[in-house]
Amino acid sequence: MIDLYTAPTPNGHKASIMLEELGVPYRVIPVDISRGDQKRPEYMLLNPNGRIPTIVDREAGDFAVFESGAILIYLAEKYGRFLPADVQGRSRALQWLMFQMGGIGPMQGQANVFFRYFPEKIQPAIDRYQKETRRLYEVLDTQLGRSEYLAGDYSIADIATYPWVKIHGWAGVEVRDLPHLGAWMDKVAARPAVQRGLAIPGKVSQEEIVKSAQNIVVR
Amino acid sequence: MIDLYTAPTPNGHKASIMLEELGVPYRVIPVDISRGDQKRPEYMLLNPNGRIPTIVDREAGDFAVFESGAILIYLAEKYGRFLPADVQGRSRALQWLMFQMGGIGPMQGQANVFFRYFPEKIQPAIDRYQKETRRLYEVLDTQLGRSEYLAGDYSIADIATYPWVKIHGWAGVEVRDLPHLGAWMDKVAARPAVQRGLAIPGKVSQEEIVKSAQNIVVR
Repeated sequence: MIDLYTAPTPNGHKASIMLEELGVPYRVIPVDISRGDQKRPEYMLLNPNGRIPTIVDREAGDFAVFESGAILIYLAEKYGRFLPADVQGRSRALQWLMFQMGGIGPMQGQANVFFRYFPEKIQPAIDRYQKETRRLYEVLDTQLGRSEYLAGDYSIADIATYPWVKIHGWAGVEVRDLPHLGAWMDKVAARPAVQRGLAIPGKVSQEEIVKSAQNIVVR
Repeated sequence: MIDLYTAPTPNGHKASIMLEELGVPYRVIPVDISRGDQKRPEYMLLNPNGRIPTIVDREAGDFAVFESGAILIYLAEKYGRFLPADVQGRSRALQWLMFQMGGIGPMQGQANVFFRYFPEKIQPAIDRYQKETRRLYEVLDTQLGRSEYLAGDYSIADIATYPWVKIHGWAGVEVRDLPHLGAWMDKVAARPAVQRGLAIPGKVSQEEIVKSAQNIVVR
């Protein structure tokens, strides 16, 4: 059994979509990031960065994995799916996974911060991150004009990227004129496992969160 | 033979340090990022994001790898070094590699932008990224108090992280009071391969760059 500590964010959804795609049993333990539970000392023993998601593999000596990209690789290798076995196919998937981890995620995240959350409206910062996110989407669009999925077949690169691109509107970034990206979004969105993964952890009552926080087990 | 397209930046140095650590023959092809050569169409066929570094493996059908984190994994697996073979050791190294790729690199990069390069002085943005970079360094310091290197033995996680932390002063972030991080920096800095890797591509004449740009071979 895999325990998944998560919250309804794009990084959390990468892990829940992957677990749904794999169809393996897992237990969801919601982390209330609005309350700062990801900074609780017992949680930070599992995830030293104090972020979500984290998985704990109860079949492997309670092995904890943090960083959404590392979680995807760990699960892909444990179950032998969504990461090609040949050297070059595997590397292509990891290249696009890294492009998401180092590019799309951080830059779109900053666009969200300055466009939605920052106490001051700092237009040059909003412009910088919306423009960079859009540039990165154009890189995706070009690649998806050459390849049905980011790295050939559907892989962890797509699973990592889709939950971010899906919420492009929240960052105020347009995708309507990117036809290959749009077609890819439609294909990924149609996958039942993606739909199920996006519903995790769903609406969670405060009582459930308190109860689940008590389930945090330290390795 | 590996061809390395690079420039003297932390992401470029990850690749050159790795190649020096491996002690394998490679050819350096400097990319003049001040002139925008990383956006030349022939280069973007190797690196669709238009960034450095890129490697091209001439022994593997001119296979191109972009994204510094994916380059480190590709080389570690090709030569069987700096990435543990056991499942959990391997995952630990990949977790800290992802922490660098998604955290240290992007956040310290934004600190550099707003502290050094941005046309306007936007203090809230400078503060945001210096504070976040410092927080991430504290996560490193805590980990390095538990483990000699980031993931047990010296690995691609250290190779990815060191070139960024080394230039903390450029981002205006202090490390003096982080003793475990400081001890780790001293140990990594003392490695001859690290010193050689940091000197790549070194001072390059315009003539050499023009010549080397002609060496860009499309896969």
